[in-house]
Amino acid sequence: MPSNVSLNFTLNEYAQRLSKTRTAMSDRNIDCLIVVDPSNMSWLTGYDGWSFYTHQCVIVQHDQEPIWWGRGIDAPGAVRTTYLDEDNILGYPDHFVQSTEYHPMDHLSKLLGKLKLDRESIGVEMENYYFSAAAFLSLQSHLPKATLIDATAIVNWQRIIKSDQELGYMRSAARIVEQMHSRIYDIIEPGLAKNELAAEIFYTGVKGKDEHWGDYPAIMPLLPTGMDATAAHLSWDNSKLKTGDITFFEIAGCHKRYHCPLSRTISLGKPPQKYLDAEKAVLDAMHAGLEYARPGKCCEDIAIAFFDTLETHGFKKDNRTGYSIGLSYPPDWGERTISLRRGDKTELQENMTFHFMPALWLDDGGLEITESVVINGSGYESLASVPQKLLIK
Amino acid sequence: MPSNVSLNFTLNEYAQRLSKTRTAMSDRNIDCLIVVDPSNMSWLTGYDGWSFYTHQCVIVQHDQEPIWWGRGIDAPGAVRTTYLDEDNILGYPDHFVQSTEYHPMDHLSKLLGKLKLDRESIGVEMENYYFSAAAFLSLQSHLPKATLIDATAIVNWQRIIKSDQELGYMRSAARIVEQMHSRIYDIIEPGLAKNELAAEIFYTGVKGKDEHWGDYPAIMPLLPTGMDATAAHLSWDNSKLKTGDITFFEIAGCHKRYHCPLSRTISLGKPPQKYLDAEKAVLDAMHAGLEYARPGKCCEDIAIAFFDTLETHGFKKDNRTGYSIGLSYPPDWGERTISLRRGDKTELQENMTFHFMPALWLDDGGLEITESVVINGSGYESLASVPQKLLIK
Repeated sequence: MPSNVSLNFTLNEYAQRLSKTRTAMSDRNIDCLIVVDPSNMSWLTGYDGWSFYTHQCVIVQHDQEPIWWGRGIDAPGAVRTTYLDEDNILGYPDHFVQSTEYHPMDHLSKLLGKLKLDRESIGVEMENYYFSAAAFLSLQSHLPKATLIDATAIVNWQRIIKSDQELGYMRSAARIVEQMHSRIYDIIEPGLAKNELAAEIFYTGVKGKDEHWGDYPAIMPLLPTGMDATAAHLSWDNSKLKTGDITFFEIAGCHKRYHCPLSRTISLGKPPQKYLDAEKAVLDAMHAGLEYARPGKCCEDIAIAFFDTLETHGFKKDNRTGYSIGLSYPPDWGERTISLRRGDKTELQENMTFHFMPALWLDDGGLEITESVVINGSGYESLASVPQKLLIK
Repeated sequence: MPSNVSLNFTLNEYAQRLSKTRTAMSDRNIDCLIVVDPSNMSWLTGYDGWSFYTHQCVIVQHDQEPIWWGRGIDAPGAVRTTYLDEDNILGYPDHFVQSTEYHPMDHLSKLLGKLKLDRESIGVEMENYYFSAAAFLSLQSHLPKATLIDATAIVNWQRIIKSDQELGYMRSAARIVEQMHSRIYDIIEPGLAKNELAAEIFYTGVKGKDEHWGDYPAIMPLLPTGMDATAAHLSWDNSKLKTGDITFFEIAGCHKRYHCPLSRTISLGKPPQKYLDAEKAVLDAMHAGLEYARPGKCCEDIAIAFFDTLETHGFKKDNRTGYSIGLSYPPDWGERTISLRRGDKTELQENMTFHFMPALWLDDGGLEITESVVINGSGYESLASVPQKLLIK
């Protein structure tokens, strides 16, 4: 490791992660794991760069240091951000990039051949944004003697219990998202253009507070108003807010790629009774769910208590009410492992982290009042402290 | 189409796009095209939302209005942003989302069956961030009587010549990126923390200027300094700039999802002679390349003139020097069609748009002085006007 690389975690922590990953590989008889998920690549090696729009991976074997493989011009980024020996940072030539003649995975297959891995069982993340159908077919055709095994989310699952250092970064992200919501509430008023509000959200989120500096979030700020808030994922335009508007803000603070998502809803003026009813329903249901947020219970316990309580209030939600969070790259700040929904029997353990996301998308608008929580020894702790209510201004 | 949908283009323009796409489908004997690329989905229907982290598509047939298919909670977003009839906006249940038991494409296969398309030739975008290996295998196993055809980039290629309205949006993006570079130059100084600079870049880019309001870019700002700029795609931390630092800013203005990327490099104090030599080499080579930027020439003509001239100055660049740009969603603001490199014989036509990207990543830093250009009747025009040089402050 070059002396000027400033890693976000100790070498010991990276070694533990690698060890857990290798155990999971052994359990599935995987000799070699091709890790393409940028979050997994980063978690295993420290790698950080906006290079995931071209094919890249970390190759994990049982008895060798991992190998970073990617586009040639990004190899110096791996030198700058990982603990890997430069000999284990390998770039492919640029003619493979977004070509119709060559696929980067053709190059990877040759490399696996050189490493004598082309007759082994190779794990690939079949369900991932960064492992296309074409990537799979390239490996399949160039590695006829290998056994390709679906290793989707194997590394993601090793990430679900956070270390103290990871929790520290998430607490920094929490300080950031608190500032963001505070700034939104301070400046929101009739006549303000949505993009100006979005600009302030970005500014506050990236500037951060003191040592809690802001990174880019894995999902852009969502701030739909009124009928646009019947939809879950609209961003903004330049329309001006007006009295009576109800807007939800689905945003996250991000520090060193660790997220603390938190949504709040603001009504400009007195909201209709329906929204006050929805507020009460959501908060009651969320608290009912959080009664089960402690080690030994399972994820669906939270979800069932939440959904059942919500229904007693006359509201219904037919989608999951949360998910595991932590380190992430676009397009999703979730970890894509645990969901808070019926049927998810994952046992809750200390230092798991969730975005409890009891959003209601109604027929004339939306209401989001959410919490990011960490499971502790006896229950849970909210990462951020922002007034937990439908905000009125 | 609901009367309150505000489309970015006329219905006529969307109809023309659909017609071009259907012709391309016919040329390849494709009965039905499954469009998963968010940029292509938006270009065909107007759809705009940060929902591409779950599986979704637009189904294009020859004789029917396109169908939007996606996660149930995002269907209202399609109602709010597309011209499609609500009957053609179809959501799938939430238990398909990030599940290990169910794949959303299982649901899509059933839908294709209902539409009597399950024995047809179906085009799929095999090489796309949003068409995973698992998505392909799901379709393949559930549609045994269909013929799956690789339709990668078929829609992207229809997008390469821009309409007047599209160019209008790109010019708005150009006004925005001009402001961003102007703001950077105004505030950069020794002692400024990189994340504060990034915060200002976001603020300026999203606030925009007058009616040219800013959207989020498809690539986050890259602003590496010194040795970090030997790598192509590093973002920022909270380190403080100091005298002698050389930083490149790879950023884009974005308006209604249309991009104008533009990079500049700033030296705090007099740069070493090597960087002044590199500046001259890059500008001479770029101008040599741009001599060929006119209808009738082809993309590699630009590239060859550029690379040859660069080498006469003693510099070498072993990666592409540009790509087609326009409408885009993360993780890439390129269109993933044309590259400015040797071997790309695409003929240049009026209203094609490129990011001419003659970046040099050297052994002790980087230099980026780039231009986004539109091919006109007799040559080219730079979209943005920012001093074309290594900036010194």
